[in-house]
Amino acid sequence: MNTFGKRFRFTTFGESHGKALGVVVDGVPACIKIDENFIQKEMDKRRPGKSKYETSRKESDKVEILSGVFDGFTTGTSIGMVIFNENQKSKDYSNVKDLFRPGHADFTYFQKYGIRDYRGGGRSSARETSARVAAGAIAKLLLKELNIEVKSGICEIAGIQADIQDFEYSKTSSIYALDSNKENKQKEAIQTAINSHDSVGGVVLIKALNVPAGLGEPMYHKLDGQIASAMMGLNAVKAVEIGDGIQASRSKGSINNDQITSKGFETNHSGGILGGISNGDDIVVKVYFKPTPSIFCEQKTVDINNNDKTYLLKGRHDPCVAIRGSIVCESLLALILADMLLLNMNSKIDYLKNMYSL
Amino acid sequence: MNTFGKRFRFTTFGESHGKALGVVVDGVPACIKIDENFIQKEMDKRRPGKSKYETSRKESDKVEILSGVFDGFTTGTSIGMVIFNENQKSKDYSNVKDLFRPGHADFTYFQKYGIRDYRGGGRSSARETSARVAAGAIAKLLLKELNIEVKSGICEIAGIQADIQDFEYSKTSSIYALDSNKENKQKEAIQTAINSHDSVGGVVLIKALNVPAGLGEPMYHKLDGQIASAMMGLNAVKAVEIGDGIQASRSKGSINNDQITSKGFETNHSGGILGGISNGDDIVVKVYFKPTPSIFCEQKTVDINNNDKTYLLKGRHDPCVAIRGSIVCESLLALILADMLLLNMNSKIDYLKNMYSL
Amino acid sequence: MNTFGKRFRFTTFGESHGKALGVVVDGVPACIKIDENFIQKEMDKRRPGKSKYETSRKESDKVEILSGVFDGFTTGTSIGMVIFNENQKSKDYSNVKDLFRPGHADFTYFQKYGIRDYRGGGRSSARETSARVAAGAIAKLLLKELNIEVKSGICEIAGIQADIQDFEYSKTSSIYALDSNKENKQKEAIQTAINSHDSVGGVVLIKALNVPAGLGEPMYHKLDGQIASAMMGLNAVKAVEIGDGIQASRSKGSINNDQITSKGFETNHSGGILGGISNGDDIVVKVYFKPTPSIFCEQKTVDINNNDKTYLLKGRHDPCVAIRGSIVCESLLALILADMLLLNMNSKIDYLKNMYSL
Amino acid sequence: MNTFGKRFRFTTFGESHGKALGVVVDGVPACIKIDENFIQKEMDKRRPGKSKYETSRKESDKVEILSGVFDGFTTGTSIGMVIFNENQKSKDYSNVKDLFRPGHADFTYFQKYGIRDYRGGGRSSARETSARVAAGAIAKLLLKELNIEVKSGICEIAGIQADIQDFEYSKTSSIYALDSNKENKQKEAIQTAINSHDSVGGVVLIKALNVPAGLGEPMYHKLDGQIASAMMGLNAVKAVEIGDGIQASRSKGSINNDQITSKGFETNHSGGILGGISNGDDIVVKVYFKPTPSIFCEQKTVDINNNDKTYLLKGRHDPCVAIRGSIVCESLLALILADMLLLNMNSKIDYLKNMYSL
Repeated sequence: MNTFGKRFRFTTFGESHGKALGVVVDGVPACIKIDENFIQKEMDKRRPGKSKYETSRKESDKVEILSGVFDGFTTGTSIGMVIFNENQKSKDYSNVKDLFRPGHADFTYFQKYGIRDYRGGGRSSARETSARVAAGAIAKLLLKELNIEVKSGICEIAGIQADIQDFEYSKTSSIYALDSNKENKQKEAIQTAINSHDSVGGVVLIKALNVPAGLGEPMYHKLDGQIASAMMGLNAVKAVEIGDGIQASRSKGSINNDQITSKGFETNHSGGILGGISNGDDIVVKVYFKPTPSIFCEQKTVDINNNDKTYLLKGRHDPCVAIRGSIVCESLLALILADMLLLNMNSKIDYLKNMYSL
Repeated sequence: MNTFGKRFRFTTFGESHGKALGVVVDGVPACIKIDENFIQKEMDKRRPGKSKYETSRKESDKVEILSGVFDGFTTGTSIGMVIFNENQKSKDYSNVKDLFRPGHADFTYFQKYGIRDYRGGGRSSARETSARVAAGAIAKLLLKELNIEVKSGICEIAGIQADIQDFEYSKTSSIYALDSNKENKQKEAIQTAINSHDSVGGVVLIKALNVPAGLGEPMYHKLDGQIASAMMGLNAVKAVEIGDGIQASRSKGSINNDQITSKGFETNHSGGILGGISNGDDIVVKVYFKPTPSIFCEQKTVDINNNDKTYLLKGRHDPCVAIRGSIVCESLLALILADMLLLNMNSKIDYLKNMYSL
Repeated sequence: MNTFGKRFRFTTFGESHGKALGVVVDGVPACIKIDENFIQKEMDKRRPGKSKYETSRKESDKVEILSGVFDGFTTGTSIGMVIFNENQKSKDYSNVKDLFRPGHADFTYFQKYGIRDYRGGGRSSARETSARVAAGAIAKLLLKELNIEVKSGICEIAGIQADIQDFEYSKTSSIYALDSNKENKQKEAIQTAINSHDSVGGVVLIKALNVPAGLGEPMYHKLDGQIASAMMGLNAVKAVEIGDGIQASRSKGSINNDQITSKGFETNHSGGILGGISNGDDIVVKVYFKPTPSIFCEQKTVDINNNDKTYLLKGRHDPCVAIRGSIVCESLLALILADMLLLNMNSKIDYLKNMYSL
Repeated sequence: MNTFGKRFRFTTFGESHGKALGVVVDGVPACIKIDENFIQKEMDKRRPGKSKYETSRKESDKVEILSGVFDGFTTGTSIGMVIFNENQKSKDYSNVKDLFRPGHADFTYFQKYGIRDYRGGGRSSARETSARVAAGAIAKLLLKELNIEVKSGICEIAGIQADIQDFEYSKTSSIYALDSNKENKQKEAIQTAINSHDSVGGVVLIKALNVPAGLGEPMYHKLDGQIASAMMGLNAVKAVEIGDGIQASRSKGSINNDQITSKGFETNHSGGILGGISNGDDIVVKVYFKPTPSIFCEQKTVDINNNDKTYLLKGRHDPCVAIRGSIVCESLLALILADMLLLNMNSKIDYLKNMYSL
């Protein structure tokens, strides 16, 4: 089940240490201008090895478009993109071949399939998300035609929370921090984890601006449901929140209801979504990442024959996956909005009649 | 998009004050014994009007099976079920006809469709979830054949948290409280809200026991992704958490990783899911409900012509939707597990060969 | 898998001799005027027992709309419709309980599911198609908004072919004959079959007029592919042809290519579809029905324990299923066109920009 | 909509003269042995330029597997495959840039998308089918594990029909002729067409042997419905027939019904499918191809501004697309059977219980 979306869809393939990763983006309307530089810049945001807070694996993550674009525009046909792995052969995996790394998907993939590509997690590696960013870049080019913007940043690392949300600052921060006042503390927490061969969790904030009201398909393809599905399905994510989410569950109706006025909603506790449909306000999502399971301390595990073992990981890993994860979250929200925009075109018969000028 | 699931699917229809609600359950394997009493008992758990902590709307929520069951067993064909509304005509809706209730889906449905059944929220009413419970009962009968159990209860109301999780006690509590020591405080909080014409939020805990390892379809139909989608898509839900979720984002890898031993996982921070696939441990989900948007205080709103208005709701409403919502959450998890079990049959070629004894 | 379509979808349930048949139509745009009389008239065309050339089973096939329509218009929510069976208990089935009727689906349903509702074929009965006609009527109301018309008639019975295609005449004929000159011969062939306890096959012609160019979604949801899928999936259908189809395979490119001029195509060998996409010309489809497998001669069969048996059918059956099948074919084409129209709204980015007036 | 199938799915991308064609095969069970030589041999059967009865375009059609296979076995993850185009830049397309070739999809793609890759038909070229053959080879490796075999051959060219069906002979024939006695006449018909700058149509016969009873998912994913959809969706196909199909429509029930005995069906008029489900007999399908629309005679057409033009094609084209099309038909049937086998695993609860040994 490597496909996501109903109309604007993408299907990914590829393993961490295989030949290549790739994605087929399907359902893209024709005549969207494709800026390959923009796509590559999106890739670069997620690309590993940009700072000491990221894995030191080096990959240029160069995307090649194989189809679906002609003379610089989409043609309505499926867009195949491939990212060849460059740095995949550097390691001997004989020591992890028969072991399951705690906190990783090794155990469950083996239980399910009876076979797995154990090199760097194979298919279950977060490296797969590079394909989502490539697809997300196409989605963003669609959103751009409608002036919709999606932004993300780090609002919490190791429990250290941002007080302000400065998305402009975030772009310049090596940890995509939203709050410059908290950035150093957040970095220190990461460094402390690195020093103790450990890892930390974090929280990503995503916002979408200028989203028209009406997006989301009740009952089982709602905007919030799809956001939750996409984000929770992302490696290391264990909770998803829309708007005030958790705090709302401790609030009262009289406080939590966003009052409606002729100038718009007075507050945005709802995170821009009511009944699973966008209300025209900003979409606000928080995504909670667990600490990277890859740590360099000795851990208990079993081998494929269920013998007790101890395990000491070597290699290169992100000490806090939320950081590079933020770009993926942003891409996923773009992909969902693109899908919802296309689906929403079918909501009223008048849209169809207008299309044929009836 | 009124269909949920890939193999074990259900499609619902019906409005709060229409003629009937209904559901078609499709993809149910043949030869499952159908106990109609069990289905009705499931309905009764969600049925309104059982205590003063629920809406006083009276509905018997009697389910009628129209197809798909023969001589007491499923036949592999689609199961149509219908619940006729009995108490739908009791009210004059002229005062809400042109107004959007704050915190409700009225505004967004109108933006999307340009028309809506304004009687009791129409399609966006939580009354639709009765159809999910009917479908969920079929799913539970499938799970029963494999000894899988799904349980739910209230772990928090108005910020008052349960310290213990007693699912047996929960069954006897009129608010499905998991912690008998906190139940009275939770009830008081609800009563206080009722007295002040207000409402409160709450949190539901759901557990699934005896779930085999291997359920979940990477990358985009993962077990946690589907749970998040289903729960977030439920009325009033604004956050979903798997296992330690939010707390995990503030933890370290060395603490959060569940160590693996030959006797199983030492801890269950992961909530039974790794890489989107069940690991054989209990599935643990928390669902955060906002306070019921239906409150009896004066609120600001606009009419369909965007004129500012004030609005004072009359009628019957749950002061805390999490309570009856817990049964729906439980049903949704059962439905997802049934779907995932069927999907997982395709994971290895050996299962297919065994089926044909090759 | 009781759902058909991608955007304009329908899901059916119900057995020949169960309580009811039903359909949920999903993805219908809001604000389409629903004329319940029209829907019932469509049902009446397919309703059994109207002439001696049809089964004598009496059913009023009264459709009840349970949801999705408010104040006479669609609301964008799922439309549930139910048709209660009235004449389902008239027979003792003990003699067919353990036998498989030759040419029917009895054998294959039993092989697949290990259980079946043997009363009148259960789910595999053509009675299920009444639900398709109900759904098709909704589709036709959508098509009407765009002035698209779908017509059908009988072009061949027992090898007796129509030379002219008079769809107006067809409406008045009790066998929906397209050619009044051939009608009597066709009727005689049916009567001869009835007299000899036998049945005959037939061919249905369907045309759609005023279909805009551009409908159909390459590569795997093409207009012709979907038509073929729907028609072939219909009871008793064993071949489907678009345009000149079979004859085209014996022709030459220089003859078969429809020359293009500024006034349109010079010929319509293609049946209005090129590359799986409508070209603006009439859609032309032929559907080949085998003779009704229900015949009143002694036949060889086995019972569920694979013992050889002879079998002599009793009951009421259509001597030529193509006749009433024509209405179902027409409905299916309407359903496909509605789906394709909605899908095609996503083909160009300009349609989306226009919708938001950008 | 570039994805086909429900469980065993494939998604294709690529244009005739773009960088590459590709396919992602998803839903493949783990632990199937992958023989890359076998895959390449399948490709070679469809590869152009093998005889004078085919286009002279030279492509090695070398498939590269990018993911999903590890140590020679499938891992349950998506299998990405790519075929780089080698011979795509040999031509100047300025003369066809603004013209629509009669009988081709040029006109309809332009109507739908407003833009198209006009080089060799772009996405609408039959070159896309090479990706289907690659996917089909994976399906065949699955079928092999169950001893199911799929075969194809040419049973008619230019109206010259095969009297015998010798699939072994077919493999050795440069036009995949089933009847060695008719082969020369069929070749002559092709040569005559070539000489007169014309083309001819043809008919492909496909058979699947050793298919278990029970495959096919009523009501809307039936085995025959899916076959019809796949075949009709193939370039140049205008009719599809199961078993006796067209002839059955002119027959009587007493003749057409396949009598059932304890040793199996006495005849196979049904082509192995009853009620959309396989009955254990051979699956028999006929696919009718129109003559190649690419002919070298002057034709009438219009340009994109609807000006009348004449058009004289140059280039390399198959004089009879049915020949190489036969391999694609065979691949499609393999893909459908693989999908249906996986789907059928969910038909009875006992299969699930057996899997968990309950």
